[in-house]
Formats: sequence, C-alpha cells, structure tokens
Amino acid sequence: MTQTASTNRRVVLAERPKGAPDDKTLRLEESAMPKAGKGEMLLRTVYLSLDPYMRGRMNDTKSYATPVEIGGVMTGQVVAEVVTSDVDGFAVGDMVLHGSGWQDYAVSDGKEVINLGANPDNPSWYLGILGMPGYTAHAGLLNIGEPKKGETVVVAAASGPVGATVGQIAKIKGCRVVGVAGGAEKCAHVVDTLGFDACIDHRADDFAAQLKAACPDGIDVYFENVGGKVLYAVLPLLNAFARMPVCGVVSWYNLPGLPDGPDMGPAIMGTILRMKVKVQGFIIFDSFGPEHHKAFIADMKSWLADGQVTYKEQVVDGLEAAPAALNDLLVGKSFGKMVVKVG
Amino acid sequence: MTQTASTNRRVVLAERPKGAPDDKTLRLEESAMPKAGKGEMLLRTVYLSLDPYMRGRMNDTKSYATPVEIGGVMTGQVVAEVVTSDVDGFAVGDMVLHGSGWQDYAVSDGKEVINLGANPDNPSWYLGILGMPGYTAHAGLLNIGEPKKGETVVVAAASGPVGATVGQIAKIKGCRVVGVAGGAEKCAHVVDTLGFDACIDHRADDFAAQLKAACPDGIDVYFENVGGKVLYAVLPLLNAFARMPVCGVVSWYNLPGLPDGPDMGPAIMGTILRMKVKVQGFIIFDSFGPEHHKAFIADMKSWLADGQVTYKEQVVDGLEAAPAALNDLLVGKSFGKMVVKVG
Repeated sequence: MTQTASTNRRVVLAERPKGAPDDKTLRLEESAMPKAGKGEMLLRTVYLSLDPYMRGRMNDTKSYATPVEIGGVMTGQVVAEVVTSDVDGFAVGDMVLHGSGWQDYAVSDGKEVINLGANPDNPSWYLGILGMPGYTAHAGLLNIGEPKKGETVVVAAASGPVGATVGQIAKIKGCRVVGVAGGAEKCAHVVDTLGFDACIDHRADDFAAQLKAACPDGIDVYFENVGGKVLYAVLPLLNAFARMPVCGVVSWYNLPGLPDGPDMGPAIMGTILRMKVKVQGFIIFDSFGPEHHKAFIADMKSWLADGQVTYKEQVVDGLEAAPAALNDLLVGKSFGKMVVKVG
Repeated sequence: MTQTASTNRRVVLAERPKGAPDDKTLRLEESAMPKAGKGEMLLRTVYLSLDPYMRGRMNDTKSYATPVEIGGVMTGQVVAEVVTSDVDGFAVGDMVLHGSGWQDYAVSDGKEVINLGANPDNPSWYLGILGMPGYTAHAGLLNIGEPKKGETVVVAAASGPVGATVGQIAKIKGCRVVGVAGGAEKCAHVVDTLGFDACIDHRADDFAAQLKAACPDGIDVYFENVGGKVLYAVLPLLNAFARMPVCGVVSWYNLPGLPDGPDMGPAIMGTILRMKVKVQGFIIFDSFGPEHHKAFIADMKSWLADGQVTYKEQVVDGLEAAPAALNDLLVGKSFGKMVVKVG
C-alpha cells in the first residue's frame, strides 16, 4: 500500500499505550481524499518527521500539548508538496513545512505553513538540523546552558538530532564536549564525525565511572534529553553554578508509572541546592520567539555551509514503516535524525 | 554552667550523625579563654543563630561549604560584644556580627566582621530578618522567583524566618500567597499575623487536596526550602513557566540515605519539562552580590518601619540548650527564627 493520488492513507491512534507502544497502539487506515475548497490548498506529504515528543501525545495527561484523540491522526511535522492551491503565496509544486500529521494528504488555508519554495536544497533538513531539533539545540544550549569557553558540556543522546547539534555548537563555543550514546558505532560517529572530545556508551557496566573519568573538571552544562541513569550519573559531577536545559526525558517516556526506588528526589533537589544548579525545562516554540529563531537560522546555515556542523539522517521508507520506526527511536535504536519518506 | 569571664565554653562536633543528630553528636566543653594579640580583638558571644544549614555541616560530603571537623567548634553566626580591641573601627562595647560559631569567646582581626555600633536596635535581628534568612528570602524570591502581581506563590515552612519573609514580600508584590506549615497554631500565625491568604497544615491527611483547593489558579512560584511531601504535592499544581528558587530541603537533611521508592525523579524532571519550569538552587552569599544586599537592606528596613513586614523570634536560653534546639528546628518544632541567648 503506497501513496496514491486517489486515497489518503493515515496512521491513527488506536489505543493509549501503557508503557511501550505495541502493534495495537497505531493503526494504518485508508480514508477518502480530502478536498481543498475556496481559499485552500491540497498538500501531499513527502517526508514525515519522527520525534520523541510523539510518545507524550499518546498519553491523556496534562502536558504542553493536547493529546491525540483515540481514532485521531497522529500529530507530526511534514515536508509536503503543494498539489492544488487557491492560497496566495503558495504555487503548485512548492514544498512546504506543515503539521499535517501521519498521513498522505492534508488541506490547509495556509496558516502555520512555511513555504520552502519550488526546489529547496535538502527539504527534509527542515524537519531536523534546520527545524525543530536544530532550533531546540541552538536556543536551549545558548540561552539556558550559556556555555563558556573551556567549560565541560555533557550531552545525552549524542548521536540524535538534538544531541549531535548541541555538541557541535558547544565545540564551536570552545567547550570540552562529552557525549553519551548507546553502543560503539554511535560513540565512534560522535567522536570521529561530530568532533566531540569523548563519547561514553551508556550500556557499559561502568558507565558512571567512565563518565566521571571523561569529565576531570566536572560538568558545567548538562543538556538533558533522556533522564534516567544518564541524569543520575551526571548529578554527582555537576560543578557549582551548573546549568541544565531540559528538552526531554526520553528514557522515561515509555514508563507505565513511577519506577521502583530508591527515591532519587533528595539527590536531584539536594544537588540543585548544594551546587546552585539552574535546571530549566523548555518547549522550543513556547519558550523562544522570532528573534531566537532568526539567530538560529543564520548561525546554522553558516555552520552547515562551512562544514562546522555535520548532519546525519536515517530515512525510513513508507508510511507503513513509521510506527515501528518510532518505537525504535524511543528505545535508542535510531541513528541520526529519523524521517519517513512517505511519497 | 553559664557564660563567665574566665573560661570559654564551646560546642564541638563529637561524631558525625547518621540520620537525626542525637546526644552523642555534639559535646559542650570548656577550654581556655582565647587571647587577643596585637591587631586583634576579643569578642563575647551574645546571640547565636540556629539555622537548618548547620545539619549539612555535620556531614562529610561535597557541599557548598567545608564540613565541621570532628572535635571542631560548630559553625554559626553570632552577634557578639567587643570586650577588648586593637582593631581600627571597633571599640569596646560595640556589637558585631561574626561567624564565631557555637562558643562564648572568639578572637578576630576584624576581617569579615560587621560592626553594628554600640547600641543597635534589636541586635539579634541581624541573625534573622535583617540577616541571612531575610536576605535569602528577598534575593531568592525577587531574583529567581520573579513574582508578578496576581500570581500564586506557595511557601513551605511558612512560619520560619525565610518562609515568613518570602510570603510577606510576595504579598507586598501583589501575589496570592499560600503557606505550608506544621500545625494549627503556626497556620493561624501565618494567616492572622503574617497576612498570607491561606496556610495549609502539612500534617493533615488530605494535605495535597487542601493545597490544590487553596491554589485554584495553580502555582506560579514555589519557594522551596523543605523538599519531601510538600514538593511532591506542589509538582502537579505548577503552572507553565513556573519558577522554583531552592534554598533548602530541610525535611531531607536528617536522611541517613535515599528513601524508599517509588523514584520521583521522572515526576520531578517530567514536570520541569512539560511545564517549562525553572528550578534554581542558591546559597545566598555565593549567589548574590553587594548590589542585591543593598537592595535587601533598604527594602527590609523600610518594610519593618512601616509595619509591612512582621518578625517573630524564638529565643532559647543558654549555650547548653542549643543542641536540643537545633534538633527541634530540624524536625519543625521551632516557631519563628531561633536564636540562642548565650550571654
């Protein structure tokens, strides 16, 4: 079942998962082609972005965004092609960035759609290094992490689209950068290709000891996107006045409830107190405004052009492969920014 | 055994406590009178401040301050009288603020000693509302908490010297202020005398439900000084972009190790992420400089003069009573700022 011009395939939330999503969580179904009316345009999905936050949208809990309804199309950002258009500023053949979700087609009136033009270079990059993950890395590191030359920055999920970008920016700013990733292949990529000073495999039995050895001067900035054992290994290494931007806790997203003890609350809060740490959560489009976005785009285009920042994608083929790919991403089996080539 | 002019009584750390300090932790002993030499002065302790941070100094762990050595005099701030002086700017009879610790006499060369003059009003207030606790409340609330008119501020240990001051300042700034304290008598004081909008007894079985009911618009600022169940009841009530200055986690200071689970780490970090919370630890004299102190003194003297801020002390009589009084403070049995009248 591939993309056609006559039906709209879509992935809907079949039931709310308890713990890790399984094959009953999402359902691929066909529906009628949506019809663009007056003042509207029809968009055909080319690339769908897969991101850790999607796990949160499957839950029915108070969060920063409305949960997906049962039977509703999974949310997600896409790069799409304009098929028909009655919207000023959008021509047939233009590529656009839009929150169409996990489906082949969507109708839009042009609101909250960004036009990338007819033939953008690397359009899928607008879902990654030039999009939400890259912006998250740039704004979170520079505005909350505030890395200073010579400081030590630790980045979890270091081969992922956010972590890889955080670390490369921290290198540009003159920091010692230590990544954490899962497995030798990812760690080699982080050091050899991305240029981190070190990368520790969190699967190693002596992970905490290795992390400590890699941070002889302690940790000044910990860019938090995983939580769990990485966070707990970082806590005793934090220096006075350390900063911790928090953009995710992906290792905890599949938890069906609070894990067994001991309760690490006293260790977290005690460290924050004793070491005068600033911990700040952020959701990129809520927490930062247009001036930050402008700075991000200017910096990143320049760094990509002169090779200071390298970008790695993992392209998954076909909408039907998206549910399993998201599950891989949530357990650290992805390698690079994951996008689905839908059509 | 009272203060005399011929011997120096002092309280030393006899052994490091595991959990709550007991009667083997501290030891009152007599030693020879210290002698002031050339360029020095002899100070006689009048008031000794008791503060929660002292529990941390009994531990041999990495912290913001050097631990007290076994056999060493317990650290603490005092108001003292100058007995003899060969130091410029200090005359016999002047009252001074100094870190002499838990003892009758100390010798100083005048460094890190603040002269309060010959007859200051309420000299013990410089250990409280005009000293470290008041400054902690003022700088932490205004610079990290950043309360805005109409917001809801929750303050733990609301009848204590820091909490009481935080809440009164938040009222001055136009906030809805909800205190948390232990027992009906303290709660009545917090509402009736300090002017908080509500005060919840954390000993109540339905404490979390009562706190929620008292914060119908959620919580924008939580001034953290206790940790434990108060923190865990606050977490689900935090609003987007809430701020949490952390100056203490006193309910956890006597823990011999991490408590049983569940692990609340995912709840703490998940809330910080989803609600975009800023949590920042601070140690008042490390985190804030002279310009903040100047603002604090100016504000506080004005608020005390016009009655906008009320201050309550609990004066304990005699150095020999100090160990038991500190233990009371650590378990919430004190009421108001605790000072020991030493001589």
